[in-house]
Amino acid sequence: MNLTHRHRLRVIYAQTDRMNVVYYSRYYEFFEAARSAFLRRINVPYEQMEREGIFLPVVESHCRYFRPATYEDLLTIETRLEDEPKVKIKLSYKVYKDGVERPIAEGYTIHSFVNSDLQPVEVPEAFLACTRKYTGQVLEDEASP
Amino acid sequence: MNLTHRHRLRVIYAQTDRMNVVYYSRYYEFFEAARSAFLRRINVPYEQMEREGIFLPVVESHCRYFRPATYEDLLTIETRLEDEPKVKIKLSYKVYKDGVERPIAEGYTIHSFVNSDLQPVEVPEAFLACTRKYTGQVLEDEASP
Amino acid sequence: MNLTHRHRLRVIYAQTDRMNVVYYSRYYEFFEAARSAFLRRINVPYEQMEREGIFLPVVESHCRYFRPATYEDLLTIETRLEDEPKVKIKLSYKVYKDGVERPIAEGYTIHSFVNSDLQPVEVPEAFLACTRKYTGQVLEDEASP
Amino acid sequence: MNLTHRHRLRVIYAQTDRMNVVYYSRYYEFFEAARSAFLRRINVPYEQMEREGIFLPVVESHCRYFRPATYEDLLTIETRLEDEPKVKIKLSYKVYKDGVERPIAEGYTIHSFVNSDLQPVEVPEAFLACTRKYTGQVLEDEASP
Repeated sequence: MNLTHRHRLRVIYAQTDRMNVVYYSRYYEFFEAARSAFLRRINVPYEQMEREGIFLPVVESHCRYFRPATYEDLLTIETRLEDEPKVKIKLSYKVYKDGVERPIAEGYTIHSFVNSDLQPVEVPEAFLACTRKYTGQVLEDEASP
Repeated sequence: MNLTHRHRLRVIYAQTDRMNVVYYSRYYEFFEAARSAFLRRINVPYEQMEREGIFLPVVESHCRYFRPATYEDLLTIETRLEDEPKVKIKLSYKVYKDGVERPIAEGYTIHSFVNSDLQPVEVPEAFLACTRKYTGQVLEDEASP
Repeated sequence: MNLTHRHRLRVIYAQTDRMNVVYYSRYYEFFEAARSAFLRRINVPYEQMEREGIFLPVVESHCRYFRPATYEDLLTIETRLEDEPKVKIKLSYKVYKDGVERPIAEGYTIHSFVNSDLQPVEVPEAFLACTRKYTGQVLEDEASP
Repeated sequence: MNLTHRHRLRVIYAQTDRMNVVYYSRYYEFFEAARSAFLRRINVPYEQMEREGIFLPVVESHCRYFRPATYEDLLTIETRLEDEPKVKIKLSYKVYKDGVERPIAEGYTIHSFVNSDLQPVEVPEAFLACTRKYTGQVLEDEASP
C-alpha cells in the first residue's frame, strides 16, 4: 500500500534513564503515539471500533536502536503500512532525530484484529476503505496534537 | 485503625531518569504496588470487587521527596491505614531505603469507592471486615511477590 | 508573577489503565511535559543549565482528580507560575479536557535549585530574567511539539 | 552456556491498559527486571561496571505475545543466556503465568558493551567469569526482591 505517515514528538525527562538516553521500552510508546496519529489521520475510527467490540492488540513488536535520543530531542516517527492487512496488520516505524540524517531507530509492530474475547475476526471493511483511500501517500500530523 | 504494612521492592533501570534518580512519578507506582500488596495481605478481594462493579480510583495524590533513590536500591514502602474508611479511604506511605534511617519520601493517596459509572457507593462491608481484623497490626509481604 | 502557559497533548493508549481512565501517575508526566514546554517557551535554557551543573529536582508533588480522561482525549495543561522563585519554585497545573468546561484535575510541583551534589543553590539570574520578561502573560505552545 | 534464571513478579494496575491486559511495552520492563535480578544472582557487579564506565545499552529488542496477562497475575520471567557474549550479549526471555502451562510471551534483547562515549568495548573478563561459573545451571531469585 506504501502508505506513510510522519508524527512529531518531543522527548520528555520521564523518558530518559540514568544512561542519559531514552529508555528502550519508551520507543514502543512512541510507536503507539505515531500509529494512533496515523489512524486518526486516515480517519480510522479506532475508538469507535473498540466500542463496537473490535480490538487491535499487539502480537509482536521489534526495535533496533542505532543512536541515542535524549531530553528535549525532537523526533519524527515515520509509520509505514506496506501491505494490505488481512487477519493481521504490520506497521513499520523509522525514528528520525532533528539534525541527524539517518534513522536513529527502527522497528515494527504486528497486530491482530480480535473481538472482545480476543478471538480473531476479519478486518473491518471500513478499516480497509480508509487505508485504500490513501494508498501511496505521505501524510503529516494535523495541527492539533 | 493504625494498620501498617511493609512492602519491599527493588528499583529497576526503567525507573531512573537522566539525573540518576528515580523519576518523581514512579513513586506513585511504588505506592500502588505497596497498597495492592497490602490489600492482598489483609485478604481484600480487590480483583473480585472490580468484577462486582466496585472500583477505587485515586481522587488525590501527594508525595514529598527528601533524598534520592537510584538503580538497584532496595526500598521498603510502609503503607498505613489510620482511619476507618467512610466514603473515601486514605492511605499514607513512607519510603525507606536500605542503609538510610529516615524515610527518603512520604506521601498519601485518597480513593473513592465508586460503581462502574464512577458514582460514589458505600464502603463494602467485606472490605471493612478485612481492615478491622488487622487493626493495630504491622504486616509484612508474603514470600511470593 | 501570574505567568501562565497552555500546553496541548493527546492521551495515548499506554496512559490508560484497565479502569479505562488515565492512570493517576501519568498526570505527573503531563505536568512535566507542560513545564518543559513552558520553560522552552520563555527561553529558559534548562538543558544548558543541567550541562552547567544546575538541576531542578521535584521535592513535592500533588494532584487532585475530578473527572477521568481516556484514550484519544485532547487535554490542555495550564501551567502557572504565581510567585517569583527563591530557593524553590512552585508551579501549579490545571488539566482541561476538550468539551468539558471545568478542569478535570489540578495539582502542583515544587522544585529545588541544586548543584550536581544535590545541594541547594541560588536561582540563576538568567532563569529569573526569563520569567520576569513574561510577567502577567498567557502563553501558548509553539507550533512544533 | 545454557544458563537460565527465573524471576518472579506480580502485575500491578499501572501496567494494564484499557483493554484490561498488560500494555505491550511493559513486557520490556519485565525483561529488564528479570535480567537485573539474573546479573545480581550470578554476582555481576553491573552497578559498579557503570561506575567504571562500562554500559550495556539495548541495541535490539523483540517480543511476541501469545496470551494476555492482567492485574494481580503472578508471572515468572525465565531469562536464558545461550551463547558466551563477545562484543554483544543476547538474552532470551520466556514469560509464564501461574496456572498456564505454556509461555504467554517470549522475546529477546541484544546489548552492546560500550564505554561512556557509547563506543564498543570488549566484554570485561570479570563479566565472563561470572557467567562461566554458572554454565548449565538453572537459578532462582534470592529471597529479597
